[in-house]
Amino acid sequence: MKRFVVVGHLAATSGTFSLNDLPGSAGRMDILCRCINSSLFLSHDLRRDVECYLILRGAPDPEKTVLFRGSAVRYLSPDERSSAALIKKALSIPCGDEFRESTPGVYVRRGGLSRILSEIPFAVLDEAGEDIRGVPVLPEAYLLSDHQNFTPEDQEMLEGRDRYSVGPLSLHADHTITVLLNEMDRRESGWMSSKR
Amino acid sequence: MKRFVVVGHLAATSGTFSLNDLPGSAGRMDILCRCINSSLFLSHDLRRDVECYLILRGAPDPEKTVLFRGSAVRYLSPDERSSAALIKKALSIPCGDEFRESTPGVYVRRGGLSRILSEIPFAVLDEAGEDIRGVPVLPEAYLLSDHQNFTPEDQEMLEGRDRYSVGPLSLHADHTITVLLNEMDRRESGWMSSKR
Repeated sequence: MKRFVVVGHLAATSGTFSLNDLPGSAGRMDILCRCINSSLFLSHDLRRDVECYLILRGAPDPEKTVLFRGSAVRYLSPDERSSAALIKKALSIPCGDEFRESTPGVYVRRGGLSRILSEIPFAVLDEAGEDIRGVPVLPEAYLLSDHQNFTPEDQEMLEGRDRYSVGPLSLHADHTITVLLNEMDRRESGWMSSKR
Repeated sequence: MKRFVVVGHLAATSGTFSLNDLPGSAGRMDILCRCINSSLFLSHDLRRDVECYLILRGAPDPEKTVLFRGSAVRYLSPDERSSAALIKKALSIPCGDEFRESTPGVYVRRGGLSRILSEIPFAVLDEAGEDIRGVPVLPEAYLLSDHQNFTPEDQEMLEGRDRYSVGPLSLHADHTITVLLNEMDRRESGWMSSKR
C-alpha cells in the first residue's frame, strides 16, 4: 500500500467552511484537495493501492486526520470542489479517537502528525533529500507539507527519517506526489528498463 | 519557451459559466484549470518560461484559444477557481482573430487547433509514444487532450508528429505536464547526472 500524509497547517478542522473559498477561510484546503487528486486519480480510473492522509491543523478544533482510501472511495471527482465536499462531510460528523467513515472510503479521527508517525514509518519528501531516481528500493509511505514548512516541533519529530527529493526545483505538494507516483509506476511495470 | 496546448472538447466558449460548476456546465473546465496550475506553478514561484494554450471547443461559440503566459500573468492563484475566473474574464471580452489581453498575461482569440498547429511545431503526448526519459533532446512544445481522445479529424491533422509518453499508465493531462516538466527541470539543471 502506498501512503501519503500531507500536513495542512491552516486547514479547517470544522465542516463549516465554504466550498467557494477553499484557499481563504478553509485554510488553503485547495492544496489538500489537489493532493487527493494527484494521489488517487488515473485517467478514467483510481489508484486503488493508495491512501492519502490529510492532517488538518487550522481553526477551530484540535488537529484532525482525514483519510481517503483509493480502494473504497466513492462520490469523488477530480475537481477540488468534489474532494473538498467530502472533507467537509467528514468534518461534520462526530469525531472520535478511531477512524470513522463519513462517506464510502473517507474517514476522520482526532489526532495529527505525532500519532500517525507512531503508526506508519513515513519517509519525508524534502528538497534537500536523496534523488528518488537513484534509490534502489523506494519506501511506500511519504510525508509532505503544504505551502508552509514543517514547524521546529515537527522537524524534531522527523529527525532521523529518510529524506527524498523528486527534482531540482521546489514543487507544490501535489506535483511532488505526481512525480513520485510516476517513478513508482515505472519501476512496478518494468517500463523504464524495457523502453530505454 | 516551453509550450503546452490542451484541447478542451466540451469547454465553454462564453464567459457565462458558473465558477461553482466547472466540471458540469463549464464543460470540464476544471481539467483545463489544473493544466494551467501544473504548467505555471512552482512552490512560491511561477514558471516564467512556460506558455499554456487552452483550446475551447464547447458551446455556444466556435473554437476559441485562451493563452496564459507565465512571464506576464498576474492575479493567478493555484486553485482551480482562480484560473477559471481569469478564463471567464477572457471569454467575456470581444474576441478577434489576434490575441487580445483580458487580464495581465491572459489572452484570447478566435480559432483552435488547426491554426495553432500551423504556427508552432507541437509534439503529441500519447501513451503509445516514446519514453521521454530516453529521448536525447526533448521538444519544447506539446499537445495534450482533456478527458476525451482526439477526434478522427484531429488525428488526421496530427499525423506524422512526434509522439512521447511519460509513463506506463494513462494519466490526467495536468499530471502528464507535471511529469514532463520534472524531466525538463532535471535536464536543464544537470541535477540528475550529478545526483545519481
